[in-house]
Amino acid sequence: MVMTRSDATTEICTYDATRICVRGINLCEELIGKISITDYICLLVLGTQPNDAQRSIIEAAIVALAEHGMTPSVMAARLTYMGAPESLQGAVAAGLLGVGDQFVGTVELVAPILTEICCSPLGPKDAAANVVARHREAKTLVPGFGQPHHKPDDPRSPALFAVGRKVGVDGAYINALSVLGEEVDRAANRHLTINAPAAISALFLELGLPVRIMRGFVIIARCIGLVGHLAEEQVNPAGRALWEAGAHAVAFAGKPVP
Amino acid sequence: MVMTRSDATTEICTYDATRICVRGINLCEELIGKISITDYICLLVLGTQPNDAQRSIIEAAIVALAEHGMTPSVMAARLTYMGAPESLQGAVAAGLLGVGDQFVGTVELVAPILTEICCSPLGPKDAAANVVARHREAKTLVPGFGQPHHKPDDPRSPALFAVGRKVGVDGAYINALSVLGEEVDRAANRHLTINAPAAISALFLELGLPVRIMRGFVIIARCIGLVGHLAEEQVNPAGRALWEAGAHAVAFAGKPVP
Amino acid sequence: MVMTRSDATTEICTYDATRICVRGINLCEELIGKISITDYICLLVLGTQPNDAQRSIIEAAIVALAEHGMTPSVMAARLTYMGAPESLQGAVAAGLLGVGDQFVGTVELVAPILTEICCSPLGPKDAAANVVARHREAKTLVPGFGQPHHKPDDPRSPALFAVGRKVGVDGAYINALSVLGEEVDRAANRHLTINAPAAISALFLELGLPVRIMRGFVIIARCIGLVGHLAEEQVNPAGRALWEAGAHAVAFAGKPVP
Amino acid sequence: MVMTRSDATTEICTYDATRICVRGINLCEELIGKISITDYICLLVLGTQPNDAQRSIIEAAIVALAEHGMTPSVMAARLTYMGAPESLQGAVAAGLLGVGDQFVGTVELVAPILTEICCSPLGPKDAAANVVARHREAKTLVPGFGQPHHKPDDPRSPALFAVGRKVGVDGAYINALSVLGEEVDRAANRHLTINAPAAISALFLELGLPVRIMRGFVIIARCIGLVGHLAEEQVNPAGRALWEAGAHAVAFAGKPVP
Repeated sequence: MVMTRSDATTEICTYDATRICVRGINLCEELIGKISITDYICLLVLGTQPNDAQRSIIEAAIVALAEHGMTPSVMAARLTYMGAPESLQGAVAAGLLGVGDQFVGTVELVAPILTEICCSPLGPKDAAANVVARHREAKTLVPGFGQPHHKPDDPRSPALFAVGRKVGVDGAYINALSVLGEEVDRAANRHLTINAPAAISALFLELGLPVRIMRGFVIIARCIGLVGHLAEEQVNPAGRALWEAGAHAVAFAGKPVP
Repeated sequence: MVMTRSDATTEICTYDATRICVRGINLCEELIGKISITDYICLLVLGTQPNDAQRSIIEAAIVALAEHGMTPSVMAARLTYMGAPESLQGAVAAGLLGVGDQFVGTVELVAPILTEICCSPLGPKDAAANVVARHREAKTLVPGFGQPHHKPDDPRSPALFAVGRKVGVDGAYINALSVLGEEVDRAANRHLTINAPAAISALFLELGLPVRIMRGFVIIARCIGLVGHLAEEQVNPAGRALWEAGAHAVAFAGKPVP
Repeated sequence: MVMTRSDATTEICTYDATRICVRGINLCEELIGKISITDYICLLVLGTQPNDAQRSIIEAAIVALAEHGMTPSVMAARLTYMGAPESLQGAVAAGLLGVGDQFVGTVELVAPILTEICCSPLGPKDAAANVVARHREAKTLVPGFGQPHHKPDDPRSPALFAVGRKVGVDGAYINALSVLGEEVDRAANRHLTINAPAAISALFLELGLPVRIMRGFVIIARCIGLVGHLAEEQVNPAGRALWEAGAHAVAFAGKPVP
Repeated sequence: MVMTRSDATTEICTYDATRICVRGINLCEELIGKISITDYICLLVLGTQPNDAQRSIIEAAIVALAEHGMTPSVMAARLTYMGAPESLQGAVAAGLLGVGDQFVGTVELVAPILTEICCSPLGPKDAAANVVARHREAKTLVPGFGQPHHKPDDPRSPALFAVGRKVGVDGAYINALSVLGEEVDRAANRHLTINAPAAISALFLELGLPVRIMRGFVIIARCIGLVGHLAEEQVNPAGRALWEAGAHAVAFAGKPVP
């Protein structure tokens, strides 16, 4: 079979009989045993090893999001493992499939708003007020605010901002998020916390990370947490309790049994 | 780029600019609008259109397994959809990932046991008694018996056997399952129902279906049920209730907060 | 543990020790062996058994989309099965995860455009011209037109429309799609086929199906096709050939090995 | 609704309005910005922070397995992303679903063999010879040997063993793997490399990691690599080239078009 060459290329990895090279670096001589997982994540996803700010913030963000107890994603993973213990990877995959627009999507949804506020000729305060007014009119929530379990504030956000300040990252995007928070509070007439995904969105913008791959770091974080929960499920299973609790929680309201 | 031809082949589908052929049949002229879904499943999975017995039993098996309320698989799908409503396919996939060894795996696990009983020179009764004794010694359950929600009997099993008898399928494998059930009951000193996956395993063996693909029919059945549940979740969501119930059901028993 | 009752409900299925009821119908007495898979799909997803038009069109649509050879979705499933043969469900899930916005998404994306054309006071021709002009300005393609393997026309679309006409379904949405096609061709100065997902979108609108669940029927269709391919992969594997061909097709263009 | 308390518990994470505690440690005060990803992986999966040997070896193992070019798992992820770009998590999940018994399963399959060799009263050499003889008789391959792309040796294995020696990990399991390799070579009458998953299996046994969760570390590693590939796919897509190459590689060998 003769095939015309495609134009598709990759720049990530090549290998021959005795060597594997990742981003131009010899895996076995210069990376295994010599690079941290954080730096390797950056090398693979961003294409280069991180500078100090990237290293600290990306590490802190992954630590902040890896674990938050019995989330819907964790429950899906544990319920799946109960039915298919032959496939640990299937249970992790089931958990990751819930890492979408609704909860962590904030990371992606907040970024364009912060960019709008930073670029506006109106200045941050008026630009933020416009954003809030626009959402109010459309009867939608401004993404990135509120957290069902933490009051008055999501404790992860100040911890993340502190990491940023420590490495000199405290710029216009973080200011924009802060100003936006004030306008959100004013319009709601109560305090709504800046949640962790919003804080991470601002910090990632400061680092210059592309919005389109921000969710990728969240997926890595959640993958770690899910493996932790499945390790516990192997020795102390909660799947059956989740099943029974769920089945009881949803009442049947359809046509009666004839 | 010149590639040597691989030896890999497919016999399922080919097409050109104006035609699509599936298993040698013109899709647009002879299948669309002319073949039932049951027959098309058989054409695709088994390679040929079904005979009457295959049609009736495969259809009945898929109907029997498609839906059984708030199963772990359904919960995983609904919890996933709550987090990622942008991906209906992700929620279905999460639900299917739980269709594994633990619950429906019975379809695959019962089949070799029934084959053993049918082939044994000891005759069904003694062969079944040996199977039960072997599991007793290994302190494992004989697969295919018992069902947590139905007593004394899984109502799907007799309904499935009735479909089989109607199309003349009532042979040695079904007899083997029945004899095995008697031996299971005798050893347990109480009645354990032949569950639906076990009944389907026996019926599929009668049809000559390969054991390795039996789970495939179950996956199709569950896919249909999952789409039904997600259609309901779109207009009457239960995801949050499942989350809250699950989070309450699993108590924290770790190191206290410092 | 005392839990307050949630408000979540389901109307799909309830059961007790001896009965299972789906949408108010006794599964074991009235459905197993008595209902076709097509009708059961409608009962589960739409909530009621189909009328003749729904039955014919939904069945034809599922048959039309179940199988189209070595699609990306099929390749993902076969490559996954090669790595994890312990989990047939994982391979099906991997294949379904590609059933998204890009290819079959047309089913969902065409529907609002057809609705716009049908509702416009300008009449279909001018409304369609406006749609085409708007996409031209935005430099995006009008969804639902073109198919890489079929020229001049996707043969599935006329076959699907013929099924519709046979059951009296040939209304305003189908007319709108036809008018839109003429405007697309005029603007492109060449013929672009109405593809199968677009035809199905129009037919599903005629049936009154909600746009949000249209993808669900596609997922069921693809699930059937994927099980067919995995049944073939079990006895005549292509996974390794797909791997080698893919690895050769993507040239390394990164930093040279040091 | 009154529910009886389930016995299910978790020891991973608890939180209140202002604090999140993971394994008894305050997430926001003591972990974010203060713990490395490697240590956090150990805290979550193993329950405690790692000792020096665990830290070095687990980090090296994850780095060794995260990336190896255009693997089947990467192809599945890229093909999925082409069809469903709305769901990055779906593409990662599709890739992870191939992390199963066939390739990385070696990590789990080698471990019991090494344990057998270490525990045998025959001594390592005779025990290893027995293992090889048993596989020869069963006409199966001894897991953990051979690698299609690297000759004479998988370069990752010596790099991993060197990391182990540096932290004083060079015990009975690694010796057992080395002795087993000699017996495998003797029986095959040629050299078969100890592959990276086998090396990792031996090192993980030395650390006392449970066999059942070894695959979890591989899943985390592959998740990182997959996000890297999808970040590249976003800006330099290879999906269509993979599709075309795959479609060409698998010849149609079925019934001719009528």
